[in-house]
Amino acid sequence: MFEFEILQTSKQSNARLGKITTSHGTVNTPAFIFCATKANIKGVTIDQLKTTGVQIILSNTYHLMLRPGNEIIKSAGGLHEFMGWNGPMFTDSGGFQVFSLGYGSVASEIKGIKQSKWKKSLLKLTEEGAQFRSYIDGKIVHLTPEKSIEIQIDLGADIIVSFDECTPYHVNKLYTASSMEKSKRWAMRSLRYLMENGDGHQALLAVIQGGVHKDLREESSAFANENQFSGFAIGGSLGKTKQEMHDIVEMTSGMLDRTKYVHLLGIGGIEDIFHGVRCGIDTFDCVGPTRVARHGSAIVKKKELPENEHKYINLGSFEYAADFSPISKTCNCYTCLNFSRAYIHHLIKTKEILSGTLLTIHNIRTMNKLMEDIRFALTTNSLDEMEGEWVD
Amino acid sequence: MFEFEILQTSKQSNARLGKITTSHGTVNTPAFIFCATKANIKGVTIDQLKTTGVQIILSNTYHLMLRPGNEIIKSAGGLHEFMGWNGPMFTDSGGFQVFSLGYGSVASEIKGIKQSKWKKSLLKLTEEGAQFRSYIDGKIVHLTPEKSIEIQIDLGADIIVSFDECTPYHVNKLYTASSMEKSKRWAMRSLRYLMENGDGHQALLAVIQGGVHKDLREESSAFANENQFSGFAIGGSLGKTKQEMHDIVEMTSGMLDRTKYVHLLGIGGIEDIFHGVRCGIDTFDCVGPTRVARHGSAIVKKKELPENEHKYINLGSFEYAADFSPISKTCNCYTCLNFSRAYIHHLIKTKEILSGTLLTIHNIRTMNKLMEDIRFALTTNSLDEMEGEWVD
Repeated sequence: MFEFEILQTSKQSNARLGKITTSHGTVNTPAFIFCATKANIKGVTIDQLKTTGVQIILSNTYHLMLRPGNEIIKSAGGLHEFMGWNGPMFTDSGGFQVFSLGYGSVASEIKGIKQSKWKKSLLKLTEEGAQFRSYIDGKIVHLTPEKSIEIQIDLGADIIVSFDECTPYHVNKLYTASSMEKSKRWAMRSLRYLMENGDGHQALLAVIQGGVHKDLREESSAFANENQFSGFAIGGSLGKTKQEMHDIVEMTSGMLDRTKYVHLLGIGGIEDIFHGVRCGIDTFDCVGPTRVARHGSAIVKKKELPENEHKYINLGSFEYAADFSPISKTCNCYTCLNFSRAYIHHLIKTKEILSGTLLTIHNIRTMNKLMEDIRFALTTNSLDEMEGEWVD
Repeated sequence: MFEFEILQTSKQSNARLGKITTSHGTVNTPAFIFCATKANIKGVTIDQLKTTGVQIILSNTYHLMLRPGNEIIKSAGGLHEFMGWNGPMFTDSGGFQVFSLGYGSVASEIKGIKQSKWKKSLLKLTEEGAQFRSYIDGKIVHLTPEKSIEIQIDLGADIIVSFDECTPYHVNKLYTASSMEKSKRWAMRSLRYLMENGDGHQALLAVIQGGVHKDLREESSAFANENQFSGFAIGGSLGKTKQEMHDIVEMTSGMLDRTKYVHLLGIGGIEDIFHGVRCGIDTFDCVGPTRVARHGSAIVKKKELPENEHKYINLGSFEYAADFSPISKTCNCYTCLNFSRAYIHHLIKTKEILSGTLLTIHNIRTMNKLMEDIRFALTTNSLDEMEGEWVD
């Protein structure tokens, strides 16, 4: 089952408070979806995860089809059973990785920061689907809309995504247009395959493509609105700058059927979340909070950030060597309740993996607290005031 | 405070059931002490540790004096406070590492497996103490009996160890004898420093040296028996083979005041534990259970070991890729209650650090279950029957 309910809408913006109901429980929105890329959140057990208030996690079809393989996960009884997570779950289609992995940073590619070499690792791209080389053993792998959905059925996540071509920033409008048209056809094939082969518990999102071009985003949105998708995932290139990204998110979200659920793919900066929420985005996902944790950085509210720090508290810095206060005095995570900055600094300096575990717990809890604050602010129409606590 | 009480003695051997009372709680013996070398058990939080029935942990003076430094830990309020462990704690003197680190495997050196290069990284060894180079920044560090105890007072563990020279296997008897005499003098200096500077809550163990030589072990034991140590730690070279080690442990333990607490340094194989328990050893420590966990190996009872496995279940092996049973059907650890061999295999293959966490939890729980079984068997005089479940 899948149900999306809008509980309250903002008077100041397109923000809304909502609730997603799935076979594995509910998700109060706006919500953050944490990345369990390869069937685990790195360094954190499910029990620890539950203490942070996580509602929903995301695993990647591309990685899991290559290892351990969807057949193994299907035999285990699905991904919930395999990894021990019994709450709501999201999987992507694999399209993003097929078209972006293998030539440096995925995000850079999509954002157009690097010179495009994006066709290099992709062996063949046809109307039927894509052929690429496995990064594990070099074998040639075929991925089609039908195959992507078949794998996502095997994995059994509650929310799944149509297979799309994710076009990078550097291609021209002509290519972006023809690619978007193909993604529409692939989305229809994805939908058809799910309706014929699914057990009815999975919701399919259409990916909205069209790059930075308004008319293409409009066409992609109109197509998605007209068909029986359970919701939308805004994807593709969102431009080169933060401002451009915000503009495209605002523009695209305005084109979508407002009664349906909207996810914003791969975006999770705190400022971007406030912006997205105001545009009516219901869920966000991003590897950022867990990735920076493994690199020694703690996310805190802006007003708790030491003067010399710009974005995070960098606990590897020597100024924390004898700082016996918690990362955040207002945080109620396991890490903040039990350990000091000095202890985490020590673990980072001695290269103990426990530093990653403790910081991941903190960063996840912090992102969930942010979303809790946002949901509460929406009920009291106080998003603007509350935002000042979290960002400049 | 420190109290060691013998609750019951075996009729078949020198085994005894005991209880250690410290300012941070009690330890039922025979017990296993888990290595939290650098102020943490790698990959496991204190909360997770508590679910495994851990009674007591061991941290290393040598590593902690170099990083973060005992002054930092003292400022934090001691090691208990710094790392968030409020139970009984053991620290070693640093002697073992000073004399064995820097030239390959510590254990190999002590066991005489490698060609001895043991004087290379040690800069100076005098009656006063030792000078060595820090492995972190190359600085010259002085360690004396007084300094070792001063650091151990700063750390604040409940059970601490006298500073000794740990002689490797390859030195001759003459050297071993003179070294043992020096260790006696160093033990007296350690004891004096603690009595004059300690707060009375720490128990000091004398390290029993003498290598493989009966007369030297006798002299070292007689010295330790005659002075006001709270107990003994059997150390130094225990020979080259398992049989030799067993012989030396049996011989040495027989020379010690049987009313006092006896620890066996660095030994923790399951067979060795059964042997040691019969010799009257009360506690064991070894990095083995946690180290092999990080390398993908699970400890199980012998009767649960698959036919093709010799010592552990090597979960990195492909035969477990689709094995959806738990590591052990009889184990009640978090890992066995929630995850399959196939899932852990997947985590190992994808190089996820969570595999180390889950296997460490299992191996610690298993070692604690072994000790629980041993303690129960001692109350019912059934150690021999019970041993058959765990070893061949």
